[in-house]
Amino acid sequence: MESWDLIVIGAGVAGLAAGIYGARSGLKTLVLDEKMAGGTMADAPLVENYPGFQKISGIELAQKMIAHCKSIGVAIHEFEKVLSLDLKGEKKQVKTDKAAYESKAVIIASGSHYREIGVPGEKEFRGKGVSYCGICDGPLFKEKRVLVIGGGNSALITALYIAELASEVKIAHRRDMFRAEEALVRALEAKKNVEVLWNTEVREIKGEKLVNKVVVFDRKTGESKELPIDGVFVQVGEAPNSQQAKEASVEVDEDGYIKIDVRQRTNIMGVFAAGDVTSHPVKQIGTAVGQGITAALEAYGFIKRPYYYKQ
Amino acid sequence: MESWDLIVIGAGVAGLAAGIYGARSGLKTLVLDEKMAGGTMADAPLVENYPGFQKISGIELAQKMIAHCKSIGVAIHEFEKVLSLDLKGEKKQVKTDKAAYESKAVIIASGSHYREIGVPGEKEFRGKGVSYCGICDGPLFKEKRVLVIGGGNSALITALYIAELASEVKIAHRRDMFRAEEALVRALEAKKNVEVLWNTEVREIKGEKLVNKVVVFDRKTGESKELPIDGVFVQVGEAPNSQQAKEASVEVDEDGYIKIDVRQRTNIMGVFAAGDVTSHPVKQIGTAVGQGITAALEAYGFIKRPYYYKQ
Repeated sequence: MESWDLIVIGAGVAGLAAGIYGARSGLKTLVLDEKMAGGTMADAPLVENYPGFQKISGIELAQKMIAHCKSIGVAIHEFEKVLSLDLKGEKKQVKTDKAAYESKAVIIASGSHYREIGVPGEKEFRGKGVSYCGICDGPLFKEKRVLVIGGGNSALITALYIAELASEVKIAHRRDMFRAEEALVRALEAKKNVEVLWNTEVREIKGEKLVNKVVVFDRKTGESKELPIDGVFVQVGEAPNSQQAKEASVEVDEDGYIKIDVRQRTNIMGVFAAGDVTSHPVKQIGTAVGQGITAALEAYGFIKRPYYYKQ
Repeated sequence: MESWDLIVIGAGVAGLAAGIYGARSGLKTLVLDEKMAGGTMADAPLVENYPGFQKISGIELAQKMIAHCKSIGVAIHEFEKVLSLDLKGEKKQVKTDKAAYESKAVIIASGSHYREIGVPGEKEFRGKGVSYCGICDGPLFKEKRVLVIGGGNSALITALYIAELASEVKIAHRRDMFRAEEALVRALEAKKNVEVLWNTEVREIKGEKLVNKVVVFDRKTGESKELPIDGVFVQVGEAPNSQQAKEASVEVDEDGYIKIDVRQRTNIMGVFAAGDVTSHPVKQIGTAVGQGITAALEAYGFIKRPYYYKQ
């Protein structure tokens, strides 16, 4: 069994920041990700709010952090899926689909996944016109009619990105106001090929081989109608990737987010959590960075017990 | 009296990150600083641990964040000193040496100042061989003999920086181990002109017009001796710039750091704190960024009360 000082589960923003601080603190650090490193950050077409960069693509920012980790000796294992965790003992056990590891501390930075809206056709047409990632699939809809579902930052960023490609973009939002930065709202208002459908729920996604229409319901008038649509981007929030942590007795809140204190500690000694998987109310690149750093320094303190460490 | 949505006190990392998020959220945002914008970040010769940059000087990173703020309409007033705060009412009152302002919310990001060691000669020779900032004053000591006092990250970063300029560098540390990243300790060990004086207290700084010697005390042997030294860099930690906040009834801990919850809220409604002035255990650029962002988004929620805001 391979031994590490610190295992970080998840190579998104929080995990990469934790990796940088783990390695710089002299900890033998392994970062695992079941997908490619970069996390949901890498899905962002454009990041305009990470201090240090006025504009950068998510993938470019991710690559910078990955290169930073590698330059200081962090091991990053991509496409390696964690199967189970045993966190109670002094040595933490991490079993993946490729190996079994033990470590002195674990940071859970496994992020979140896109929430589904749960309507007929959504699962059936996933990858056939239904997508959860604008930058991944946007280019498939050049000169087509696209519907974005949601009203938060990620819905607006997706709509803005796709408006450059598609012939027309509609945004269906359940409410009568967005939950997004005003800068994004203003940018959206300036787009001529974007229309907002307020108070609107999508009730069904229809098609043959590919999506060709959606059924929308107007919450004010109570009326339903069909809209001809080629692509649907669902951006209605996230749910935490905390199932394995929960099975290993890490405490989560009612929505499944891992409970942390101000030092990123969970209820289990030597187990920390950072980023979108936690109950912290803000989910931004800059806040995930701060949490990953704090978690790594706390893990260092927990492992090395320097004179200034307070339990 | 000028009215703002949000006033941020301090234009260091946390204040600038708060500025970016305040303005992007559509808040009319003013950032005040009694010195130049950039805070203590700007004093760092080299930053190697802010995710996104493998190596960048503190001043360059500060300039990027300042430019980001300005590009989106944040007002930054430099060299404007806050004289008093009145934070209890719905409108927060901020009086400076140049004007009087009111705002709907305030973020205190006033940072910290360098702690003194409190020995004879320290005040007398400040600016005459005694310094608290390597990057500011290091170049004055080319080919000279320099003593750095302290054992944390900032002491080691200062020593590493000055070792490139000075002929010899000694580090006096009260303890027998550093409280610094291992990457820094290793870098220091590789320097041929650096010597560490373990278990050593500086008891007095002497000179004529300029510093020419220091009295050091060996805590193990109990012996004192004089060392010929041209420059002393004191790097023994920080103390919070929280006096005005405290006078305005913002709650602080026993060391004077502003008490915050996980949402960066203080004990006063509409008053938030972020960065080195807070009781958060980690004081890093990346953590200050996260806190500034959280404070600004919480201030936005407090002011605008969008449907998703929870008290």
